[in-house]
Amino acid sequence: MEYRFSDKLAALKPSAIREIFKSLTDPSIIAFAAGNPAAETFPIDEMAEISREIYADMAVTALQYGTTEGYMPLRRAIADRQRAKFGIGKTAEDGLGFADTTVIVSGGNQGIELACKAFCNEGDSVVCEDPSFIGALNSFRSNGAVTLGVPLREDGIDTAALEELLKREKRAKLLYLIPTFQNPSGITSTLENRKKVYEIALRYGVMIIEDNPYGELRFAGTDVPTYKSFDTEGIVIYCSSFSKILSSGMRVGYLTAPEEVIQKIVVAKQVEDVHTNMFFQILCHRYMTERDFEGHIADVRAVYRRKCGLMLDCLDRNMPAGVSFTRPEGGLFIWCTLPESVDMNDYVKRCLERKVALVPGSAFTPVIGAPCNSVRMSYSTATDAQIAEGCRVIGEVAREMIGD
Amino acid sequence: MEYRFSDKLAALKPSAIREIFKSLTDPSIIAFAAGNPAAETFPIDEMAEISREIYADMAVTALQYGTTEGYMPLRRAIADRQRAKFGIGKTAEDGLGFADTTVIVSGGNQGIELACKAFCNEGDSVVCEDPSFIGALNSFRSNGAVTLGVPLREDGIDTAALEELLKREKRAKLLYLIPTFQNPSGITSTLENRKKVYEIALRYGVMIIEDNPYGELRFAGTDVPTYKSFDTEGIVIYCSSFSKILSSGMRVGYLTAPEEVIQKIVVAKQVEDVHTNMFFQILCHRYMTERDFEGHIADVRAVYRRKCGLMLDCLDRNMPAGVSFTRPEGGLFIWCTLPESVDMNDYVKRCLERKVALVPGSAFTPVIGAPCNSVRMSYSTATDAQIAEGCRVIGEVAREMIGD
Repeated sequence: MEYRFSDKLAALKPSAIREIFKSLTDPSIIAFAAGNPAAETFPIDEMAEISREIYADMAVTALQYGTTEGYMPLRRAIADRQRAKFGIGKTAEDGLGFADTTVIVSGGNQGIELACKAFCNEGDSVVCEDPSFIGALNSFRSNGAVTLGVPLREDGIDTAALEELLKREKRAKLLYLIPTFQNPSGITSTLENRKKVYEIALRYGVMIIEDNPYGELRFAGTDVPTYKSFDTEGIVIYCSSFSKILSSGMRVGYLTAPEEVIQKIVVAKQVEDVHTNMFFQILCHRYMTERDFEGHIADVRAVYRRKCGLMLDCLDRNMPAGVSFTRPEGGLFIWCTLPESVDMNDYVKRCLERKVALVPGSAFTPVIGAPCNSVRMSYSTATDAQIAEGCRVIGEVAREMIGD
Repeated sequence: MEYRFSDKLAALKPSAIREIFKSLTDPSIIAFAAGNPAAETFPIDEMAEISREIYADMAVTALQYGTTEGYMPLRRAIADRQRAKFGIGKTAEDGLGFADTTVIVSGGNQGIELACKAFCNEGDSVVCEDPSFIGALNSFRSNGAVTLGVPLREDGIDTAALEELLKREKRAKLLYLIPTFQNPSGITSTLENRKKVYEIALRYGVMIIEDNPYGELRFAGTDVPTYKSFDTEGIVIYCSSFSKILSSGMRVGYLTAPEEVIQKIVVAKQVEDVHTNMFFQILCHRYMTERDFEGHIADVRAVYRRKCGLMLDCLDRNMPAGVSFTRPEGGLFIWCTLPESVDMNDYVKRCLERKVALVPGSAFTPVIGAPCNSVRMSYSTATDAQIAEGCRVIGEVAREMIGD
């Protein structure tokens, strides 16, 4: 049988990165490649307790079909908290001519994918930071959208290049940004950059997808306001999730956008998975409202503060001159850039041979196959000893190859 | 802000049916409209026990990211059981030139949607039974596919009309069938019909999506072999789920198809929700392998046998001449057809005014807006008293309107 597959998935071949991820099941490999949260951040005992309570007093609701929009008490709890704490979400009382609504999705990635489905016809384009999150890039491609990149600088996306691109790219529908502790770079854009980008997006009639899965994980510096918090025109679709603060395996995320946009997204979600796992929606609600949610997030932050600090120390000690790396103030990732003389596929391969898994930066380029001289490193799941040993190895390989 | 939404969701406006579903939250309404399983079929105590065990011995795996393909022990348990029990799934040893694989999806609907995404470009068509499952129809439309209908007869889809359609429809890529206890009609197609349909699909190079969420719910008659069980050419994508036998709210389904097809589907799933809720995948596995799964399914069947029998008795007693209805041997639905003189929107509206919710058949037509003189009724969630009272009401309204 010769299968006649659709064109839109053709660009999504299982890639080199997949092979690296397969190696992560080998316990002898030091996993700097994974984006998994640290297992010690899962509040297992409390989740077990809440689960017992749900079976005791709400089992049928938790096991029966729910609405596509999500479990209403959870939607309200998220909306209330993010409004109070981060200024996210406008109401009719704000008098801006629109009101934001929050709905539940099956992990942050689904929110991004649905936003694309709601806006992009085949051949429309999504403008992304270069580098950007591979999962989002593939979500856009799977909808037949073209992913275009604009260089990401230390203060955020390059605004001159962004405007240049939007001027000539008539089919740009969406601007996809991870402004805080970006994946893969760890960069947080400045407020000045954000204001400028917002103004450009508005001027060119492009919607912003603000992906913020790591925003709660700040362990240094001070919060920068989200795009959504100053979205007076209703052009920002805000995506976040519980994956990095409670559990990634439960697949519970959320999305805040103007009601009219949410209606489209709900229709799109309904035909994908009808609704998100009800049991864990209820669990998230109870965790947020009946447990020390803020205290738990502070604990999670402390875990990553320590791990990130350790990895930066080890990189400082082990990396030769000519190698630079970002110093994130939160999130899970460090972006490490080698001299252009180094063949990065070879670098990643040699590191893996010595039992350290890294993700080559080329996995994150909006234009498939574009060159990239960086690697993404995560400090989230490796032990302290592994971080020290892994940095020693990758520094050694870097020295060898720069010397080559 | 004037939002420029994509075209492919334009056909998916919130419909009349949505309004009916909203009314289902009103406890004074008799819910013949819902497709929800009966809450008494959820094995709550056992699920609570297994959940405790998972937190005790496997919490990190259950709460951490998993693979897109799904939890391997569950995949194996499903594949082994359905091969042994229903002859579903070919292996390399069968010598057919392909091997089937089973992957986990977030409910049966996601499997159907992913199958469409893997095969259909915009403008391609999916041939469906008329009537067919609204969720699937909308999944196809959301991928930019055109849904075409072929009349469903008492023995299955009309094979002459199917061949006629495929002869002229060059862009047909998929044939979507719910051969057993069909939603909405309750019809089970005969083996003769299935063999004929398979031969036609093969001849015209069209893949079959066999949607079988109700197959385990047979309470009368004898099993008819699934398409997948005699799929010697690798053209059948088999979708099913735990929604009707364990819990619908957990969103765990599965999909069996040739490895080459599954690879595409996994890529498509990865960009939607990365993977299905891990905790409940593990729970399903333990339920299947450590509890009396077959005994539980027998219990579920008994619930629906009784409820369906009661509703058929009540319809026999209350429906006037000129009204016909299917007599399903399993599943959740009865399809009730009124004389053409009756305005069906009006009928459904009058019934709802008297507190009985039905789904108008027009919701299930592959061609949007096609006329349909039937309603879908479910006996799954109403109490015995509600089934009696509801049938009395809808019979009364039918008599009034036929007499009108």
